[in-house]
Amino acid sequence: MSYKNCNIKGANEKELEVALNEIIKGIKKPDLVSAEGMQNRLDAKIKPIRSLGVLEDIAVQLAGIQHTVFPEIKGKAVLLMAGDHGVVEEGVSAAPQDVTAQLFYSYLNGGGGINVLTKHAGSKLICNDIGIYGPIEPPELMANRIKNGTDNIAKGPAMTREEALRSLLIGAKIASEAIESGINILATGEVGIGNTTPSAALISVLTGCSVEEATGSGTGLKNDALKHKFNIIKKAIEINKPNLNDPIDILAKIGGLEIAAMVGAIIEAAYQNVPTVLDGIISSAAALVAAKFNPIAIEYMIPSHSSEEKGELIAMKYMGLEPRLFLNMRLGEGTGAALMFHMVEAAIKVADEMATFETSGVTAGDF
Amino acid sequence: MSYKNCNIKGANEKELEVALNEIIKGIKKPDLVSAEGMQNRLDAKIKPIRSLGVLEDIAVQLAGIQHTVFPEIKGKAVLLMAGDHGVVEEGVSAAPQDVTAQLFYSYLNGGGGINVLTKHAGSKLICNDIGIYGPIEPPELMANRIKNGTDNIAKGPAMTREEALRSLLIGAKIASEAIESGINILATGEVGIGNTTPSAALISVLTGCSVEEATGSGTGLKNDALKHKFNIIKKAIEINKPNLNDPIDILAKIGGLEIAAMVGAIIEAAYQNVPTVLDGIISSAAALVAAKFNPIAIEYMIPSHSSEEKGELIAMKYMGLEPRLFLNMRLGEGTGAALMFHMVEAAIKVADEMATFETSGVTAGDF
Repeated sequence: MSYKNCNIKGANEKELEVALNEIIKGIKKPDLVSAEGMQNRLDAKIKPIRSLGVLEDIAVQLAGIQHTVFPEIKGKAVLLMAGDHGVVEEGVSAAPQDVTAQLFYSYLNGGGGINVLTKHAGSKLICNDIGIYGPIEPPELMANRIKNGTDNIAKGPAMTREEALRSLLIGAKIASEAIESGINILATGEVGIGNTTPSAALISVLTGCSVEEATGSGTGLKNDALKHKFNIIKKAIEINKPNLNDPIDILAKIGGLEIAAMVGAIIEAAYQNVPTVLDGIISSAAALVAAKFNPIAIEYMIPSHSSEEKGELIAMKYMGLEPRLFLNMRLGEGTGAALMFHMVEAAIKVADEMATFETSGVTAGDF
Repeated sequence: MSYKNCNIKGANEKELEVALNEIIKGIKKPDLVSAEGMQNRLDAKIKPIRSLGVLEDIAVQLAGIQHTVFPEIKGKAVLLMAGDHGVVEEGVSAAPQDVTAQLFYSYLNGGGGINVLTKHAGSKLICNDIGIYGPIEPPELMANRIKNGTDNIAKGPAMTREEALRSLLIGAKIASEAIESGINILATGEVGIGNTTPSAALISVLTGCSVEEATGSGTGLKNDALKHKFNIIKKAIEINKPNLNDPIDILAKIGGLEIAAMVGAIIEAAYQNVPTVLDGIISSAAALVAAKFNPIAIEYMIPSHSSEEKGELIAMKYMGLEPRLFLNMRLGEGTGAALMFHMVEAAIKVADEMATFETSGVTAGDF
């Protein structure tokens, strides 16, 4: 059974795991020959060698990913995954849980920060309810919901192993549908009051850094509340004891429904030779899990901004990635990734539109 | 006599200085009330307070500069100033001097990196020959040229005081014409083989940092050649003895024709309530001189990328500014500034297009 024919909501655990493995094992290294061909194209342009830095790196990366010396951006989309978190009842967020659903409606109505920034970047925004707590109207909007909110990780696992698998595969399905519709560069976005808590837990467990290092103030916790958040995250890790060699177990124990869907989207994109632009701390936590499934997935990731949530930088460094936009943002939603789309397009345009030494009459040399 | 009626090429030194002073003394503080009004607008949006970081800072800055709670970007332009540098004969550049004119033609033909990135940003590119060494065809393109190349600063002053004043005022005129044509956000760009040498000299003198700290490899100097560049810059400062209290003298002694024009453009923009997006090291050196003329000019500056030329960061810090895009670029031309235009427009769009708590039904709170 191919994962594409898998009945995500009906299949049993074993069938789901087979489907997931098809994706994970199918991720191949980007094409080095195309990447080198792109660097040669760039080196012929009227500029000192490698002087466009990261723009050149991105053009080279896209050439490798698309297996062509002439990569193209045909369509861009931010996949925004929404979910609630039972751990909010422990007082780990400055905002009430209802805000998740309220913001979700706002994105559907076009008024969120991510709406403004995807529009600015000429990108689609695809909003998905993976695990909001209460009902969403109309009910079709809940078609991809795996359950009504992630459970309180301070009291037990975030979800069952089966639910983690379903969330992963729903994310893969959402990415696959976007790609089928003509999108060939994705970005991960999210909304979920409380979701910096499981993200920090995941980053701490997966990188080995301390909870204090991985944890920030989310939507705006003050000092004592931040210390409380540290303790809740430590408790979640302590009572759940995630198995470090099993990323599905890690997600099921201390993850989140929408985070698992982001992981699924990242690996599916890589499997289909499509890059994913990462966003902030939730996105980075998802990226770490994706890399744990298959480290080659890292080669399909494009980092964007360095968020105010410091765990993000730790996750990035662990994967050998560097954020590029330092804008002191901490909104989430995929807003940093949407801004990075401008840089990614700039990279392709440089390769396609700049003149070469040969055609322009500019003296070439060792500079 | 108003500086606008000043015959830049015909006036005497005293007349030029009067014209320049009219600009410098006319730079006023941005409007705090409009800036506060913008922050109030942003605080009403459906996001945690200040969570869009630098985008909010820029929106607030533009409100203050434009004296309105509803600032607009009506037109963007990179002013690219071109000039040659006699100091190239000392072996301070990996590229030959002819490349300046060759690149200048390439920009006119649309093939430069800056052409691609201004087009990508929806920005105009305005190219100006301030001091290329040889003839440029057709001769009308030399209308703003002050002289045929900056003199070798390792042997004497870069130019006369009168030439420095003319270059400053030509830059102001170019900015003023752009603003009259409907542009209300400018960026500084340049081309000039050898121009990282006077830029490093200016940064060292104006910030007090060492020549070694201010100096990078330009278009690509290797180790020994870089040490030689240090020595040439030290020699230029030593023999010219610029007067630290007189920015015109500093420019005349160790500056450059196109650098002085960039300074003139920055102060003219500030005088006309127009912000300037800075680029790399040459732009930062010009910004330092502008700030020396009048520190209020800093409030009209928007930093962009952190270039590979490390002197840039020193200049930025000295002015209390922080670059935002870390892309390892070292092309110059205004390429980093052109990329920053996307962020500046994003800032305005966030203020104009995001929904508020009041209209969207999202619960507001202390987050």
